[in-house]
Amino acid sequence: MAGRKIILDCDPGHDDAIALFMAAAHPAIDLLGVTIVAGNQTLAKTVRNGLNVAQLLDIDTKIYAGMPQPMVRQQVVAGNIHGETGLDGPTFGPLHREAEKQNAVDFIIDTLMASDGDITLVPTAPLTNIAVAMRREPRIIPKIQEIVLMGGAYGTGNFTPSAEFNIFADPEAAKVVFGAGVPITMMGLDLTEQTICTPDIIKRMEDVGNTAGKLFSDMMNFTLKTQFEAFGLKAGPVHDATTIGYLIEPDIFKTESVYVDVDINRGPCYGRTVCDMHHVMKEEPNTKVGITLDLDKFWDLVEKCVRMYK
Amino acid sequence: MAGRKIILDCDPGHDDAIALFMAAAHPAIDLLGVTIVAGNQTLAKTVRNGLNVAQLLDIDTKIYAGMPQPMVRQQVVAGNIHGETGLDGPTFGPLHREAEKQNAVDFIIDTLMASDGDITLVPTAPLTNIAVAMRREPRIIPKIQEIVLMGGAYGTGNFTPSAEFNIFADPEAAKVVFGAGVPITMMGLDLTEQTICTPDIIKRMEDVGNTAGKLFSDMMNFTLKTQFEAFGLKAGPVHDATTIGYLIEPDIFKTESVYVDVDINRGPCYGRTVCDMHHVMKEEPNTKVGITLDLDKFWDLVEKCVRMYK
Amino acid sequence: MAGRKIILDCDPGHDDAIALFMAAAHPAIDLLGVTIVAGNQTLAKTVRNGLNVAQLLDIDTKIYAGMPQPMVRQQVVAGNIHGETGLDGPTFGPLHREAEKQNAVDFIIDTLMASDGDITLVPTAPLTNIAVAMRREPRIIPKIQEIVLMGGAYGTGNFTPSAEFNIFADPEAAKVVFGAGVPITMMGLDLTEQTICTPDIIKRMEDVGNTAGKLFSDMMNFTLKTQFEAFGLKAGPVHDATTIGYLIEPDIFKTESVYVDVDINRGPCYGRTVCDMHHVMKEEPNTKVGITLDLDKFWDLVEKCVRMYK
Amino acid sequence: MAGRKIILDCDPGHDDAIALFMAAAHPAIDLLGVTIVAGNQTLAKTVRNGLNVAQLLDIDTKIYAGMPQPMVRQQVVAGNIHGETGLDGPTFGPLHREAEKQNAVDFIIDTLMASDGDITLVPTAPLTNIAVAMRREPRIIPKIQEIVLMGGAYGTGNFTPSAEFNIFADPEAAKVVFGAGVPITMMGLDLTEQTICTPDIIKRMEDVGNTAGKLFSDMMNFTLKTQFEAFGLKAGPVHDATTIGYLIEPDIFKTESVYVDVDINRGPCYGRTVCDMHHVMKEEPNTKVGITLDLDKFWDLVEKCVRMYK
Repeated sequence: MAGRKIILDCDPGHDDAIALFMAAAHPAIDLLGVTIVAGNQTLAKTVRNGLNVAQLLDIDTKIYAGMPQPMVRQQVVAGNIHGETGLDGPTFGPLHREAEKQNAVDFIIDTLMASDGDITLVPTAPLTNIAVAMRREPRIIPKIQEIVLMGGAYGTGNFTPSAEFNIFADPEAAKVVFGAGVPITMMGLDLTEQTICTPDIIKRMEDVGNTAGKLFSDMMNFTLKTQFEAFGLKAGPVHDATTIGYLIEPDIFKTESVYVDVDINRGPCYGRTVCDMHHVMKEEPNTKVGITLDLDKFWDLVEKCVRMYK
Repeated sequence: MAGRKIILDCDPGHDDAIALFMAAAHPAIDLLGVTIVAGNQTLAKTVRNGLNVAQLLDIDTKIYAGMPQPMVRQQVVAGNIHGETGLDGPTFGPLHREAEKQNAVDFIIDTLMASDGDITLVPTAPLTNIAVAMRREPRIIPKIQEIVLMGGAYGTGNFTPSAEFNIFADPEAAKVVFGAGVPITMMGLDLTEQTICTPDIIKRMEDVGNTAGKLFSDMMNFTLKTQFEAFGLKAGPVHDATTIGYLIEPDIFKTESVYVDVDINRGPCYGRTVCDMHHVMKEEPNTKVGITLDLDKFWDLVEKCVRMYK
Repeated sequence: MAGRKIILDCDPGHDDAIALFMAAAHPAIDLLGVTIVAGNQTLAKTVRNGLNVAQLLDIDTKIYAGMPQPMVRQQVVAGNIHGETGLDGPTFGPLHREAEKQNAVDFIIDTLMASDGDITLVPTAPLTNIAVAMRREPRIIPKIQEIVLMGGAYGTGNFTPSAEFNIFADPEAAKVVFGAGVPITMMGLDLTEQTICTPDIIKRMEDVGNTAGKLFSDMMNFTLKTQFEAFGLKAGPVHDATTIGYLIEPDIFKTESVYVDVDINRGPCYGRTVCDMHHVMKEEPNTKVGITLDLDKFWDLVEKCVRMYK
Repeated sequence: MAGRKIILDCDPGHDDAIALFMAAAHPAIDLLGVTIVAGNQTLAKTVRNGLNVAQLLDIDTKIYAGMPQPMVRQQVVAGNIHGETGLDGPTFGPLHREAEKQNAVDFIIDTLMASDGDITLVPTAPLTNIAVAMRREPRIIPKIQEIVLMGGAYGTGNFTPSAEFNIFADPEAAKVVFGAGVPITMMGLDLTEQTICTPDIIKRMEDVGNTAGKLFSDMMNFTLKTQFEAFGLKAGPVHDATTIGYLIEPDIFKTESVYVDVDINRGPCYGRTVCDMHHVMKEEPNTKVGITLDLDKFWDLVEKCVRMYK
């Protein structure tokens, strides 16, 4: 059986890098390309980080740079979590790989338009690339099989009391995407913060003894400290990796189908994913929201992916 | 030792009625008066309900009618939860008691202005009476010892995905109150929904065998059904009663000091209490938010109050 | 024929003072009372100014102090236009008159409730008193014959590019009043700025040679400077006086019936009176908006009122 | 002397067509390309209209199709003014011309990036193409010499009481463009509605006796009726043509330098260009706003351009 066709749209970023090496390695996934957007850091930095990871692990996929700025708002980045480079922690050798010439937005449009409706988009970053693609070429919308994204929260946010970073960094793009009518699966903080990567998990991956295990360790040791300082978390969650985990083993995740809207009012809830968990609005559900996961099986899966590298 | 001086500002309402009979009976509380506002139902109905409860249980306190409408928004009521009368379930005999002539807002102002700063306001309803009093006579603000209120949520709301009913019914009033600089303790849904009143709790109160126990039973049997239908809750919480419980036995409650703002933008988060649970905004905390309670001890306290009636 | 019954609701203020002495003197007006609100300055100052003017001109009307703060927003005052006292310019002797004990809001409610629906409210200030009265006792609404107010603009504002001061100082109150269903006549900046009071007009009133003429002169000489500095106007308009002018001689005013809404979003149009001058919204008109006036006849009327004093 | 280099970004549209034939004919303008966006009608229709006009008048310029939808909001079109095709009135023969393969957004980016900072953008449509270009490639921003646009109003709007159509059709794009720091000249309704094209003006152009004159006449006869029905205007203004008029003969226009912001709150002022005409906000002016024009000289210029065609 061929793997599930996806485009990974990310802003590496520590947990993006984990999502990337899982997607590239696991046979259940057919990674058509990696599109990169500004988010955790500026576009120049997130592209460089994506290339560094791909070169280090010898990942054979094309990488496309997309939107360097959000659609409407002033840009914010997450230097407090991901450091000055956006992927502080590991050290990489001289970079030889290059991004493709084609813009990520155009790659998304062209790939979807040429497809049979069997491609899933996997954004683990602000939704700028996806939203601009949708508005530039609305005919891609019915071609998208599903969007499995990391972002949002039905409980409290992280960058503000109301909003999770990926959505807060481009709320207007999120408004476009959640309103497009595409089936969405949303891995929000409520689920992803269950994946905090404690020292014993880090050691377990490191003990695999290969490059991927060392990269995992170098990265997640860095976020141990920043996630604690910023949000009081005991360690850094691997937020983005849950999207790939869900695509490979959906059964280890519990989700609920609800209606989700995005608040774009410039008040204290700017960028909140408003999830109607009790169905009080009587709207048709547009999103499967992640609730819990079987954490042991999830780490098993991550380790399995780590072991797929040399 | 004399009891703690409070004004109970309510919109009875099933759980308001429980708060009322607890406050009136327990010696730790010195109930200076009951002020009533529109909320769960129209003012005419909430006043009538308050008088009926006071007459039935022979509660010796003055009752004042206040604001019949929210400050700015169109009125909403909670007929889906509290029924047509606002206190469906019990049947009351002919009503002889009457509300005072003085308006509730004036009573609040006059009582506070004549006080030594030792009065606590206990709103278990939309905050219209309190906010109008504050704006009409700002000199009461430093006279308020504390506001212990039922309302809001840091997680999901009930009347909308974002907002709890008391705040949603008058968000602008809540904005005024939370911004006034008075110490606030907020019993939000996160805490109050832990107090769902299951059939065995209802039976326990009924088994006390007095009028208060029967009233408790008649009321909470009604909300068994409505809370399930509206929000999927297994039974009706006694939201408002937690405020009085907290004033009598604060040690059975766990709270956290955080900064709370109210969203008055007319979008999907209108009426949300934005609680900065992770302190990401670096604002000075203005509210102690209820997190958990010792539920066994709480029901013991409720029963103790029930037993104080004939 | 008896005069038209009005309650003047003001925040003196230079032009309020002119409205007051016109209303008190002219037989076409039956001034039932003067209610005062915070606005051009704090309530303590606007009440003092009202009392000073009434005492100076021996005006026989009762004066009531009302709301010291807007309904929801933080207070703003117009010290840049009206000076430190709110009525800089004239000097007054020792003040002997006092405001009534009754609150302005209660006076408005009681007077309307006792009436036959023949009372017109004339607000020349932020609409706080009126809105709080409407929300505290909604039964007054069908009792109000008309509201003739100074405030708003369909063109550009003065305190912000979008908003006129009276509305900007309490947009939520304006939202309540314009949404109440009462017939409204609105004298906005578009009309009132046509009444700039140039040195020759000032001289003309002064030349009457009585106390009222001198008061007019002392006041309007002050605003010559402030209106120029703040808004580039050649002199100070007598905004508020147009309401009384309209009630006495409606034929010298041209108005248009349109639908008016008030923007309470906290963006750059906060406090704007959105006037549908081209009827594109297809809403039923709720307001007669002042367009132009016969300025010569208006000044004749003002002078006539000045001459009615000793 | 070579003409001023411009890219005309339009949504033809009757008045767009006039702007187009003026820009293409007059030697003071060097028309580098025409980019088209959805607006007055859907993109398919506005592109077709642009091609039809270019073919009819044998205009030698490349035409690029851009964004078919606004950035964030739901699409609105102006069928009430421009008819079902977006250019009702004239009849065109079979269409042979085609739009370029390159997307308009890419053409704008590539052209600006290759330039020496001597290109002026002339949007007479919703600002979607321009805003997406700015966000996709922010380095174009310092390359733009000036933006001379038709849109907005400091007085009343047309599609809503607050907003002019071009801005209302994509307020978020306008927010991006006005906030970009590029020198802007804005021809808003306040100026453009002075250019209503009465029957005698239409006849004058028709009397030139060539294809351009006939096109002018066929188009503007159509808007005589729609502008009256929609907005009560005596005839249709040639809004968009003022931008090209200004670029050719700036001296016949009076402008004022003010600070302009765009309201993107989803209330009654959504899409309003908030123009600080009285400089009360003390912000640095970012826009020259058109106030008046010498109408005789303007029509002379239009006629001159009409006469440049065969």
